[in-house]
Amino acid sequence: MKTLGYAAHSADSALVPYHFERRDLRSNDVAIEILYSGVCHSDLHTVNGDWGPQPYPLVPGHEIVGVVTSIGSDVTKYNVGDRVAVGCMVDSCMECDQCSHGEEQYCRNGMTPTYGAPDRQTGDITQGGYSKHIVVREEFVLSVPENMDMSKTAPILCAGITTFSPLRTWNVGEGSRVAVIGLGGLGHMAVKLAVAMGAEVTVISRTKKKEAEAVAIGAKKILASTDAEEMKASASSFDLIVDTAPVKHDLNIYTPLLDVDGTLVIVGQIGLMDEPLTIPLVMGRRRVAGSLIGGIKETQEVLDFCAKHDVYPECEMINIDQINTAFERLAQGDLAHRFVIDMASLSAE
Amino acid sequence: MKTLGYAAHSADSALVPYHFERRDLRSNDVAIEILYSGVCHSDLHTVNGDWGPQPYPLVPGHEIVGVVTSIGSDVTKYNVGDRVAVGCMVDSCMECDQCSHGEEQYCRNGMTPTYGAPDRQTGDITQGGYSKHIVVREEFVLSVPENMDMSKTAPILCAGITTFSPLRTWNVGEGSRVAVIGLGGLGHMAVKLAVAMGAEVTVISRTKKKEAEAVAIGAKKILASTDAEEMKASASSFDLIVDTAPVKHDLNIYTPLLDVDGTLVIVGQIGLMDEPLTIPLVMGRRRVAGSLIGGIKETQEVLDFCAKHDVYPECEMINIDQINTAFERLAQGDLAHRFVIDMASLSAE
Repeated sequence: MKTLGYAAHSADSALVPYHFERRDLRSNDVAIEILYSGVCHSDLHTVNGDWGPQPYPLVPGHEIVGVVTSIGSDVTKYNVGDRVAVGCMVDSCMECDQCSHGEEQYCRNGMTPTYGAPDRQTGDITQGGYSKHIVVREEFVLSVPENMDMSKTAPILCAGITTFSPLRTWNVGEGSRVAVIGLGGLGHMAVKLAVAMGAEVTVISRTKKKEAEAVAIGAKKILASTDAEEMKASASSFDLIVDTAPVKHDLNIYTPLLDVDGTLVIVGQIGLMDEPLTIPLVMGRRRVAGSLIGGIKETQEVLDFCAKHDVYPECEMINIDQINTAFERLAQGDLAHRFVIDMASLSAE
Repeated sequence: MKTLGYAAHSADSALVPYHFERRDLRSNDVAIEILYSGVCHSDLHTVNGDWGPQPYPLVPGHEIVGVVTSIGSDVTKYNVGDRVAVGCMVDSCMECDQCSHGEEQYCRNGMTPTYGAPDRQTGDITQGGYSKHIVVREEFVLSVPENMDMSKTAPILCAGITTFSPLRTWNVGEGSRVAVIGLGGLGHMAVKLAVAMGAEVTVISRTKKKEAEAVAIGAKKILASTDAEEMKASASSFDLIVDTAPVKHDLNIYTPLLDVDGTLVIVGQIGLMDEPLTIPLVMGRRRVAGSLIGGIKETQEVLDFCAKHDVYPECEMINIDQINTAFERLAQGDLAHRFVIDMASLSAE
């Protein structure tokens, strides 16, 4: 199938229209017309080559919402016209222990990311959601609940599941004391999801500048990390800290905020951290952990959870020809919302 | 009560005989004649002032085994002649949530260490186990099981509980895949305890030099951290890594050895770590945690566990006048055993 997308042709070039082929449907494939595509900060890092060399041309995008246009002969889960979604993965080995208990993101043989990775059968490079169409095996396609606003659903597929999964793993519920470091795309979703789970949520940011925004989405307040006195007064007061800060930073100012047995979970991809001081860890049996997106089953759960609790990302809708400006704005600093590309703006002329 | 001990009079002086007073018995106090006193690497660090300025003269020692010689009027748990022990703490607030669920080591108001800290009532500095007698409130006195060899029991009070507690917290049992970094006082106890719990235990050391020692106490083998190939082949193969390395080191060579949801728990007091790479944490939902000794209830449990499973530290018995030489040997490198002072060698002439 011929399709049109926006691709980067090198690490330092802007995204431009790009005609390319989607594969012919295999028996277990679903073809999707993409309606909305979320813009993740990691799209920017990836196309810029910040995380290593990439195969160009590269069409980014792993927050994908659309409608099924055709299905392979063995597909049983979806029909033409179904509202569906695709997230950060499009395949995995489906045989290892991790895959068989629904944690394909930790597949022993390596999951296949939605873009920039070789297809497991042909070796062709996968291409992402900044395009009109995509073809994905049915096991990696999610269902968008009936009552959900599709125009605001896309960011749940990465920002949503990436924060939902640790909230679930560390048993956040009624009365949990949760802090969220950073109020960007991931941070603001972490706040909304934790609030919907019944937690008492504090945002940690350098200043209180975004406090109104934080409170508007359900946080109790902003704790300013530059206010040494307030930080000291907040020692041992959180069960879970979700660390979404997307740049290298010093963990030592945050770990003392954890209560005994509390965990700071890193969901960003930030390479080396500053030196962690072991004293706060040892003296309070505190923990530092990482977490990567979530499995397919859990991704369906976060979609269902958001539909049920009316939780949506804050979205700023853009046309595809605004994508390079959006990337520039993202690079300048975290925004407490997510850009979503209205794919109707990409005409296949 | 007058007693005799060995004390440091400054950060750079040797331990020398020291006559001092133990407090008169309060109603809830137990007076103990000390028979054996374990030598912990932290005694050395503390008296040397490595962890901050100390109140001198200072009698170290927090692995104490002895016999009750008298009791206060309200004491109900112990009688004269009972075989007892004292570990790293001699008091805590006994009112906060941590104390009330048996985690006095994380007391909200700060527990009172066995030596070098102000008594909660008088402010007098506590003095440790390198002495003939000690007076401790009954709640912080442990019972040494009937069939236990008292001459080998002392190191269980610190090296034992410090490794037992994380093994319990992280649910080590039959078939758990446990690695122990370092084969010193703590490391060799971690191996013995984990083996007794049914785990499959690997020691991680720079070289295989100590492999015979490791295997002799139940480990499967030594994994040499300098052997890049063997380390790579051991990726994702442990549920828990108990990190007893007593010097600053790089976590990044160890975290990839954890399986998904695995934890590396730091039980040493090592200040700043080298920069941790977040990728292994994020990509495998791996965790890094700290753990501090254990509560009184759990300390009794480890004594009972060791009695039941015939687990003892490897002990090298010394006379008190050999303590400065023992400190020198400890400073030169980890020994896969613990020095224990036979307090009979300290005559109260």
